[in-house]
Amino acid sequence: MKAFEPLNVAGMALANRIMVPAMVTRLSGDDGFVNQNIIDRYVRYAQGGTGLIVIEAMAVHHVKSGPLLRISDDKFVPGLTDLARRIHDTSDSKVVPQIIHFLKVAKSGWRQTVDMLSRDDIDRIVEEFGDAVARAREAGFDGAELHSAHAYTLSSFLSRTNPRKDDYGGGTLEGRLRLISRIMQNVRRKAGGDFPVGVRYNADEFIKGGYTVNDAKAIGLRLAELGAAYLSLSVGGKFEDAVHSPGQVPYPYTGYSGDRCMPGDWYPPMTHAHYAAEIKAHVRSYGYDTPVAATGKISDPDDVERLLGSGMVDIVGIARGLLADPDWPNKVRHGERDRIVRCDYCNVCKHLDGTHMRVICTLWPQGSLQAPADDRSQAAPQWPNADASLAARAQDGSILLRWAKAPGAARYDVYRCDDLGNVSFVDAVKVTRWEDKDVLAGRRYRYHVRAYTKSGTGSAPSNTIQVELPAVHGDGFSSG
Amino acid sequence: MKAFEPLNVAGMALANRIMVPAMVTRLSGDDGFVNQNIIDRYVRYAQGGTGLIVIEAMAVHHVKSGPLLRISDDKFVPGLTDLARRIHDTSDSKVVPQIIHFLKVAKSGWRQTVDMLSRDDIDRIVEEFGDAVARAREAGFDGAELHSAHAYTLSSFLSRTNPRKDDYGGGTLEGRLRLISRIMQNVRRKAGGDFPVGVRYNADEFIKGGYTVNDAKAIGLRLAELGAAYLSLSVGGKFEDAVHSPGQVPYPYTGYSGDRCMPGDWYPPMTHAHYAAEIKAHVRSYGYDTPVAATGKISDPDDVERLLGSGMVDIVGIARGLLADPDWPNKVRHGERDRIVRCDYCNVCKHLDGTHMRVICTLWPQGSLQAPADDRSQAAPQWPNADASLAARAQDGSILLRWAKAPGAARYDVYRCDDLGNVSFVDAVKVTRWEDKDVLAGRRYRYHVRAYTKSGTGSAPSNTIQVELPAVHGDGFSSG
Repeated sequence: MKAFEPLNVAGMALANRIMVPAMVTRLSGDDGFVNQNIIDRYVRYAQGGTGLIVIEAMAVHHVKSGPLLRISDDKFVPGLTDLARRIHDTSDSKVVPQIIHFLKVAKSGWRQTVDMLSRDDIDRIVEEFGDAVARAREAGFDGAELHSAHAYTLSSFLSRTNPRKDDYGGGTLEGRLRLISRIMQNVRRKAGGDFPVGVRYNADEFIKGGYTVNDAKAIGLRLAELGAAYLSLSVGGKFEDAVHSPGQVPYPYTGYSGDRCMPGDWYPPMTHAHYAAEIKAHVRSYGYDTPVAATGKISDPDDVERLLGSGMVDIVGIARGLLADPDWPNKVRHGERDRIVRCDYCNVCKHLDGTHMRVICTLWPQGSLQAPADDRSQAAPQWPNADASLAARAQDGSILLRWAKAPGAARYDVYRCDDLGNVSFVDAVKVTRWEDKDVLAGRRYRYHVRAYTKSGTGSAPSNTIQVELPAVHGDGFSSG
Repeated sequence: MKAFEPLNVAGMALANRIMVPAMVTRLSGDDGFVNQNIIDRYVRYAQGGTGLIVIEAMAVHHVKSGPLLRISDDKFVPGLTDLARRIHDTSDSKVVPQIIHFLKVAKSGWRQTVDMLSRDDIDRIVEEFGDAVARAREAGFDGAELHSAHAYTLSSFLSRTNPRKDDYGGGTLEGRLRLISRIMQNVRRKAGGDFPVGVRYNADEFIKGGYTVNDAKAIGLRLAELGAAYLSLSVGGKFEDAVHSPGQVPYPYTGYSGDRCMPGDWYPPMTHAHYAAEIKAHVRSYGYDTPVAATGKISDPDDVERLLGSGMVDIVGIARGLLADPDWPNKVRHGERDRIVRCDYCNVCKHLDGTHMRVICTLWPQGSLQAPADDRSQAAPQWPNADASLAARAQDGSILLRWAKAPGAARYDVYRCDDLGNVSFVDAVKVTRWEDKDVLAGRRYRYHVRAYTKSGTGSAPSNTIQVELPAVHGDGFSSG
């Protein structure tokens, strides 16, 4: 598999092309220091064999913001050094911190915008990024990543909605690029031109008047010119369309652009990967071989291989899929796809972040703060008397499945086969019933379920149940 | 060209695969009757050789709504008959009316939603659509199109945000499909199964929680099963994210989904055509050969041919491009691409609709209510002393072009060549200056302009001017 071929990223030797993108954990304290929960979370990805681990965003400055890692002062370096060392001691995973600057937001819904920054403020941000990346190097990270995506300062400068009238905006693409350009130059000056610094930015803003892949191609070219180690593409996640709940600090993933940023189960897989591929092609056409990473609802091994094998992109970022199962890389590499704890894109993790809770995966055992160890000694769950008793009932516009409880099961995966014979994993549940609300009258569906231990050992498939829904007649669908 | 091969659409024999999708004109009176301006607008498309003309939405019911055609009563049939006859008398263009039902909206921002409809209301809507399509047949149209896209009743039932709890919603796909399914059946009963009835619907809602192409594939399959003559795909245009201006009736194209519905100049061309192609492939996989139409910022003849020649879609809808130049089909067919009045996607037409003005194209001569006739007797504009004197000045982050006025010119087209040699049409203007705000420091740009008469006779190209912008150094872009 192309996924497990090594990749040289500006001198950073990735063992494979699987990346865990920065994900908020809310596991740190408000003090911004690395703690044991943080170490456990990221060492877990190293155990799983991820090629590149991007540590959640850490701030270059001191603005108050709940549980958030900091890299804004030398006092944070020892903890960060420990984090990097613990990961390096675990496996050959490479690790970079994501470095962020953000503007102020208030519970009233007020938020600071880029046009409120003085030129001195901008100069300070340029220096803060340089100092932060120098600290990342000092702490022993393999590189760093600038967070220029979503609702944060660098992204807001890049935005097509940047309201500044001066040469950091002014309605020109070059004006919007000025801050990230200065920062890249200063970072390389302060941290060394040989220290790999990637950039995460939006391929499309997905807001009214926001930029599209047209601008993202130009942004990628500029970043490549300035020596970016890699380009990591995200989308959306903006304040402009955030839904403000009274008394809550606005959360930039509550609007439509937030839907797109972490696409839920109703989105197609790999929903934004074609943007990354377009950006890669554009940058290549100018002679730059900067690796390009795609993210966004990618976790099926075949999809990953399609993206990498075709050369559409160079790195695949798997966020929610690796949260669900950090052992995904090792399992796929060893031909054990069947043991993956598969993300069903229920977005409970997103909801936890949005409600200021520690971010865990609902597929983990109840009460866990981390993914369970890959315990291969666990026996496969057994159906009672080798019979899952999977049964189906057609209701008005849906099909209700029920099956027997399998002792030792932590969850059940539901598979659906459509009448063209395409089998797909459709949901992961902890109960023994599931309702399919996406069925069409006049069509035939087949289902089976499997029971899994908490670390992914699967039972034999259940019996397969087939349901034929009556066609639409007269005044429409009649229940079967 | 594949574009000019005929296509049989459920018995309706299209001479070519170019369609003008339904576009609001605001040319009718509040009384809902066909008038001379309406006839002139649509006869103009017939003169231009468009294969399929879809007349702007006409209402099946009597709710007040400004200037809007009606098909809600037999009294409208004579006017509609005249409209259809006038088009048929002009060319072999086929013509279908778009048939719409919409819910109430108020200046306060209040709007009626589908959960406020009783089951009797729904039954009435089913009958109204059947009666309306029967009238369309009586009036001599070649078929009809049901409007199930954007912010209107049928689309709101299909929406993933449909809040109804009963079997016309209920959180199931089949529930959301029930109304359009009943309507298709009733329409075919009342208007005859041999009368071609296409459906326009959204490939993606582009709103928070809205449906994606996943559901659009299932919707397309259902419509094919029910005998839809064609599937015409749009996106967005919803009330859910509309920006409400106090004292104004909400306009469903003011939010992000409105940006997507009529993508402006900052969007890539053919930005949603891949959805139509996915839907076509899905419907084909079930054995239906229902023709599929793509729309959305398509007007370049090469793009059109790419979509049709590859079989991605069967029909290409050109809305703003045909508004700018209804002669596009004949000009392309006769190898006169050079004479097309090219839409620059400035969206003044969209703005006129949003502000309740008659919809015209800003590229037409000032004061015109219709596109000018294709007057081939007009001499090409001449540059003074055969010299356009095109000059460029690099400013801070932009390049300003100026050139000489060419007597007889109605507009100027600006062409840009990037440093890879790709030439593109970038804007159409009525003045002799243009500023390029999408340039990158360190890159070379070449420009030329051409002057055009109002019907598309072009001058010789101007001189070519080349600008090399200084690279980013030190603290960023320095002006050239």
